[in-house]
Amino acid sequence: MSRQLPPAAEFIEGILDGDRMLLSRAITLIESTKQEHQELAQEIIEGCLPHSGDSVRIGITGVPGVGKSTFIESFGNYVIDEQERNLAVLAVDPSSSKTRGSILGDKTRMETLSNHPNAYIRPTPTSGSLGGVARSTRETITLCEAAGFDTILIETVGVGQSETAVHSMVDFFLLLMLAGAGDELQGIKRGIMEMADSIVINKADSGNEDAAKRALAEYKNALHLFPPTESGWIPKVTTCSAFHNKGIPEVWEIVDEYVRHTKAKGYFEQQRKEQANYWLNESIHQELHQAFYGDADLKSKLEAYRQQVQEGKISSYKAAKDLMKEFLER
Amino acid sequence: MSRQLPPAAEFIEGILDGDRMLLSRAITLIESTKQEHQELAQEIIEGCLPHSGDSVRIGITGVPGVGKSTFIESFGNYVIDEQERNLAVLAVDPSSSKTRGSILGDKTRMETLSNHPNAYIRPTPTSGSLGGVARSTRETITLCEAAGFDTILIETVGVGQSETAVHSMVDFFLLLMLAGAGDELQGIKRGIMEMADSIVINKADSGNEDAAKRALAEYKNALHLFPPTESGWIPKVTTCSAFHNKGIPEVWEIVDEYVRHTKAKGYFEQQRKEQANYWLNESIHQELHQAFYGDADLKSKLEAYRQQVQEGKISSYKAAKDLMKEFLER
Repeated sequence: MSRQLPPAAEFIEGILDGDRMLLSRAITLIESTKQEHQELAQEIIEGCLPHSGDSVRIGITGVPGVGKSTFIESFGNYVIDEQERNLAVLAVDPSSSKTRGSILGDKTRMETLSNHPNAYIRPTPTSGSLGGVARSTRETITLCEAAGFDTILIETVGVGQSETAVHSMVDFFLLLMLAGAGDELQGIKRGIMEMADSIVINKADSGNEDAAKRALAEYKNALHLFPPTESGWIPKVTTCSAFHNKGIPEVWEIVDEYVRHTKAKGYFEQQRKEQANYWLNESIHQELHQAFYGDADLKSKLEAYRQQVQEGKISSYKAAKDLMKEFLER
Repeated sequence: MSRQLPPAAEFIEGILDGDRMLLSRAITLIESTKQEHQELAQEIIEGCLPHSGDSVRIGITGVPGVGKSTFIESFGNYVIDEQERNLAVLAVDPSSSKTRGSILGDKTRMETLSNHPNAYIRPTPTSGSLGGVARSTRETITLCEAAGFDTILIETVGVGQSETAVHSMVDFFLLLMLAGAGDELQGIKRGIMEMADSIVINKADSGNEDAAKRALAEYKNALHLFPPTESGWIPKVTTCSAFHNKGIPEVWEIVDEYVRHTKAKGYFEQQRKEQANYWLNESIHQELHQAFYGDADLKSKLEAYRQQVQEGKISSYKAAKDLMKEFLER
């Protein structure tokens, strides 16, 4: 690939023109660990940044089995066809190859959507740390927005630590649940419910309506126990059957209402600023650690200190102080 | 205080002699934010380190209402009187003044124990970050061990993030629960149960025995669902009534069996080494952040970058890279 790499300007122009091929190649550069790919990717991102941001970023989580792919297929087709929006679907789930809950292999399960000219589906990179995947996803959002996608869906499986990362990069966080199964059984990590701007109970199909209604009432009650959100938004609960395309417009209506509500209150912009802040701190954190632990001269010193700390000869605090002095004196 | 501060050698000698007054004053130095106090404290810690480590460190967690103070009073008196041990009780709970679940105001509720010549109770510092409190608690452990305490109880309230910190500084982690109340109702954070080396169901009193028995069976079942522990230890479940001093020797027996089991397998020492490693990394982390964010010259640059990131003019990754370059060039 590297021999025929176009210059950054060509990438940027192509992306702004909505060229899928160049968009995909740029995302591959973002995900690459090669130095020259990274440098080119950063140039492309900086060029796309001024053209990004004008979108609704929606996080979707829910455990495997809850019907995420079907929901995204149904919801995605609705927002494209009925709301005339352009949709990009991404995923944050570094362990997707293991848990199989992500959209990695789901392009086939989202057949209509993946062939839709106004949709773009990008599977998760199959490897990498959560931090790395989170960064590449954020950068991918920038590129997708620059390419004209005004609705970004970011999927995660709801059982790991990815939810906090996704929550920190979206405007709206949607939790997909099932009726009938208890919180335990669904395996959703505690704390995730508190992040949700909406809980959508899926598979409210024939025979399951009563259970769905009960779940609706229960989750509404449960949400009342949480402290009020910063924006004043009261999380909404609704039911749907993604398989039968039922209740989907109502989900979009909730997203839309949320956006109007938070934009009117200035919270939408404020949240994006706070998120930018959060990711700046995260990036600094990663850079600091890379500089310290990647310092070849420091490595043997660090190992010697580690030995001493393990043997109880020096406190970890003192060791860290000494190492820091070495580090900063270079 | 600072005018009459004895030199480090005097502190160390006093602590090794078991002088409570000097021990308490040294802990106050550890908790102080003053530079000169910190320096003196570090000297004392380094002097005590070679005399520390010969103890059993037990973490105790459980939500407010579970009867932690009563349990510690009952358990503490037992290990002192019947097992002829010396007991220090500490707490990690930076928010204790708010949640009121900690031993901060509990000296009165542990009347026998707090007046026992072989017990030493130290309330949590009322302020400070979790990182700061965790560090001072670990350093306090060192001092208490040097002062001859061979049993260290570290309490936390089981609803915050302190559990991971406590789990990373103890040999044995005990979760105190109630019979009858569901996992939800008890408010214990998920993940904590997986840390437990033993679950003790408290308040197995008159009228509550059946519920306690059921809970015993349920938790035993639940623990079987978890992956096996690294040491091969199978977490034990037992019931007790701390208020009636019932079932307390059995709890100690579990701790003792655990220590024998893990020492025989070499896991006890291995875990302590891993913990030392963990805390070294944590200390490095804190030092790195302090150096970076505490850099006065960098501050205005950081704020300028922050502004640009928030306005979407530069990516957080690029900003972090640039700032790091500045930082490392000094």
